[in-house]
Amino acid sequence: MKGLGIAGGTGLAYGAMSTLGLAPSAAAPNRSFRPLRAGDLIGTVTGNHSVVVLGGGPAGLCSAYELRKAGYKVTVLEARTRPGGRVWTVRGGTEETDLNGETQKCTFSDGHFFNLGATRIPQHHITLDYCRELGVQIEAFGNQNANTFVNYTSDTSVSGQSVTYRAAKADTFGYVSELLHKATNQGSLDQVLTREDKDALSEFLRGFGDLSDDGRYLGSSRRGYDSEPRAGLNFGTPKKPFSLRDVIQGGLGRNFNFEFEHDQAMLMFTPVGGMDRIYYAFADAVGSDNIVYGAEVTSMRNVSDGVTVEYTVNGARKAITADFAICTIPPHLVRRLQNNLPSDVLSALKGALPASSGKLAIEYSRRWWEIEDRIYGGASNTDKDISQIMFPWNSFHSDRGVVVAYYSSGRRQEGFESLSHRQRLAKALAEGSEIHGDKYLRDISSSFSGSWRRTKYSEAPWISWVGGGSELKAPTPEFTKLLDPVEKIYFAGDNLTNSIGWQHGALWSARDAVTRIHERVAQQS
Amino acid sequence: MKGLGIAGGTGLAYGAMSTLGLAPSAAAPNRSFRPLRAGDLIGTVTGNHSVVVLGGGPAGLCSAYELRKAGYKVTVLEARTRPGGRVWTVRGGTEETDLNGETQKCTFSDGHFFNLGATRIPQHHITLDYCRELGVQIEAFGNQNANTFVNYTSDTSVSGQSVTYRAAKADTFGYVSELLHKATNQGSLDQVLTREDKDALSEFLRGFGDLSDDGRYLGSSRRGYDSEPRAGLNFGTPKKPFSLRDVIQGGLGRNFNFEFEHDQAMLMFTPVGGMDRIYYAFADAVGSDNIVYGAEVTSMRNVSDGVTVEYTVNGARKAITADFAICTIPPHLVRRLQNNLPSDVLSALKGALPASSGKLAIEYSRRWWEIEDRIYGGASNTDKDISQIMFPWNSFHSDRGVVVAYYSSGRRQEGFESLSHRQRLAKALAEGSEIHGDKYLRDISSSFSGSWRRTKYSEAPWISWVGGGSELKAPTPEFTKLLDPVEKIYFAGDNLTNSIGWQHGALWSARDAVTRIHERVAQQS
Repeated sequence: MKGLGIAGGTGLAYGAMSTLGLAPSAAAPNRSFRPLRAGDLIGTVTGNHSVVVLGGGPAGLCSAYELRKAGYKVTVLEARTRPGGRVWTVRGGTEETDLNGETQKCTFSDGHFFNLGATRIPQHHITLDYCRELGVQIEAFGNQNANTFVNYTSDTSVSGQSVTYRAAKADTFGYVSELLHKATNQGSLDQVLTREDKDALSEFLRGFGDLSDDGRYLGSSRRGYDSEPRAGLNFGTPKKPFSLRDVIQGGLGRNFNFEFEHDQAMLMFTPVGGMDRIYYAFADAVGSDNIVYGAEVTSMRNVSDGVTVEYTVNGARKAITADFAICTIPPHLVRRLQNNLPSDVLSALKGALPASSGKLAIEYSRRWWEIEDRIYGGASNTDKDISQIMFPWNSFHSDRGVVVAYYSSGRRQEGFESLSHRQRLAKALAEGSEIHGDKYLRDISSSFSGSWRRTKYSEAPWISWVGGGSELKAPTPEFTKLLDPVEKIYFAGDNLTNSIGWQHGALWSARDAVTRIHERVAQQS
Repeated sequence: MKGLGIAGGTGLAYGAMSTLGLAPSAAAPNRSFRPLRAGDLIGTVTGNHSVVVLGGGPAGLCSAYELRKAGYKVTVLEARTRPGGRVWTVRGGTEETDLNGETQKCTFSDGHFFNLGATRIPQHHITLDYCRELGVQIEAFGNQNANTFVNYTSDTSVSGQSVTYRAAKADTFGYVSELLHKATNQGSLDQVLTREDKDALSEFLRGFGDLSDDGRYLGSSRRGYDSEPRAGLNFGTPKKPFSLRDVIQGGLGRNFNFEFEHDQAMLMFTPVGGMDRIYYAFADAVGSDNIVYGAEVTSMRNVSDGVTVEYTVNGARKAITADFAICTIPPHLVRRLQNNLPSDVLSALKGALPASSGKLAIEYSRRWWEIEDRIYGGASNTDKDISQIMFPWNSFHSDRGVVVAYYSSGRRQEGFESLSHRQRLAKALAEGSEIHGDKYLRDISSSFSGSWRRTKYSEAPWISWVGGGSELKAPTPEFTKLLDPVEKIYFAGDNLTNSIGWQHGALWSARDAVTRIHERVAQQS
């Protein structure tokens, strides 16, 4: 395990501590913790300072972990009996009763699982730094795949056809290149392109589109083969391209952007054994003495000597008062707590609107996607309600595997929310088999589903801000309001960043809250 | 381990056996081998039939493996002291003297290695089926990466600048989309596009290029950030786009095609622990009694009762006569054997021209590419002689790692061939540090290089056919000639397929040779 060395900037917020006179101490007061490292929170607190952390998901556990490093007494209250919150890995033995009242028990085989919440980490996210620091092993996550399918409805002859990504890309890039090459050649863009621009553009387009000498797209080996090349004179039978009209009007390229997005571009990663490994590691580092599982918070109030939080554990009423609270409970659930928050804060909390998202996973006793479709990870995409089918990025060539039969959001998920698991499975199989064929219906061992709106303690996969959505371009008034502490209460979570729905946001928000508490304590002492 | 179930067609060549009256036998004669499976060579041979296999690389070992399954007596003669041939994994302890006379001994740390030859497997290649059948564990290979760099020379202001792939793609696709959008909008393509085509194309281009409402490319979060988004009001500082001229004339998109190629499109895979794991597994299955290592073949002759092969082991002259020979020695080396091949075959062998390719790898004691550049696998590309820098796809977050500092071919490799290892390293460091900065020069533990033209027993990474190159569009006369057996001698290898340089080609060529021998034996009996 190594220190958290976040390139170019962790020190920005954290290192500022040193200017407050908190020089690094030679030994940290909590001997069970590693000493602070360069770039981490600098200096340990003097005297006894306590923080109660509401919620044991990414923001809560990261807060507790960093506070403990700096010498604070910390208590984490987590309603569930596990760490991680919306980072939820479902495996054999997982049991859950949803807000529809239905109980599911997962019976996946040993070593097989799926992440019902967060499942992937881009390279630039701080989540990977914590994996490094905590010794959580990672592996590549297949976020895109040339061999998975697109299947969309359109007013063309490719409507409802399953087309590999490789073919969809070859045809789309082929025709786009041909069209731009033609326009450029006939002088249509001479107002904006010089002769040198045109020559360089032509060279790029010929390569990018695999164009013929006279600038036409006539198909490409990039599409793949009906019969693969083998030995001797068997040079394979290349697949024939679709027509320009089918490709463009069929919208075969409608999801290509996904893989260029800042947070989705390959290579992507995930912890070996499930995303929750990160939070079990955090929980180990925080220490079981400092985490109360099964603790349902009922009230949170600023009081004269700090913050008092009331909660129940197995029906017993308890209370704790600490100098500060970090509240990572989702904003739409904070409003339900008994509280003495001022009215402008309560109004701001209403600015967070619960989104909708969910997944259903099937364990198959035969990896037909590898054997028959030559798919080793990645996802097929569709405009059906299932939205996508995600293939396992692990356990290659084993006897069985878990396929995420849908991961849908918004309107397309809402249709699944009120269904029973059996009904969800039936819909997933009906739509999925239209994409991957009848083999999709065979060799099914078991399945499990979850809809975040119907999941207790979360009731949303993420929130969107009134007037800003879930991909904020700029802070909204409600968002900005909640960044300020309410006396000794600090809100934290992915919702208070513009990485909503990402662990990166939750972890940075936690670090931000810890830094601000630490600064305040330093200034007081 | 499961049977080799190759989707849609293994049975084509192999299953044909059943029409020859070779019904599957209830028990295979070689009890140490698994019985034949559906799709594999059908039926075992009756009587005693022997085959000598020249070469213990992919084609040779696969031939021996399949022949043994079918009941043949097999002897593999391999000049090296290891299996795999050009599939060569270099790790601590590897020692090699090249044809320049220089001896290198690799001192990489435990668990760290690089594949000096074949390093990646696409999903459709039969190589993966053999991994499944032989129980060789695989993992994802990072063949592309949004976070690696391009660095090219041009007559623009981006010349010699390191630009992330994500930025190069965002800008290239942005401007290409803007240009085509403009041309379409002004009616330049009305001859070929209907109103519906134009509407659909516009929608695609707006998404693909991340265009503004008025169809312009003004930059995109896809490019990445100078300062990453973190918590609260820190929404990050997006990087500014380059100009159209810099992007197009700078040729930032010149390597984008690579990732669309039939055999290079992600997802890609590689065996855990090194590509040579496959051939150690093949060798185990063939049995050490049936493989002679250190056997340098000196002559190969058709004789009245089969084929006689003479070879030396530790200076001792030996000879073996078998009913058939499968010769997987590269064609440009076959010509050097004493032989009685007819003149038209000797002429055909001259049609195979040795190519040039090599790699140099550096073990660093610090994974600066992860910590500083946020690169977890994939390759940076350049028009310098090093061509590319490949980052490890494994051992993430460990203390050290092996970077392939160049993998170049053709003219760009030829400059490295005659250099000493120290000179190669100096050149690799000089060029690499221009791409990844001064950190490229620090924390170096050790290094190892190889140039296939100077590697004994191979003398080429692959061959190209006179008049056809290494990516054959159609069979050349010499290629076609060598597909025919010369009496009892069958040639096999990747060079006799249109998957030259790929294990897939070698393995299919082996299967093809075995099938043809088996058919011939069946017809004789």
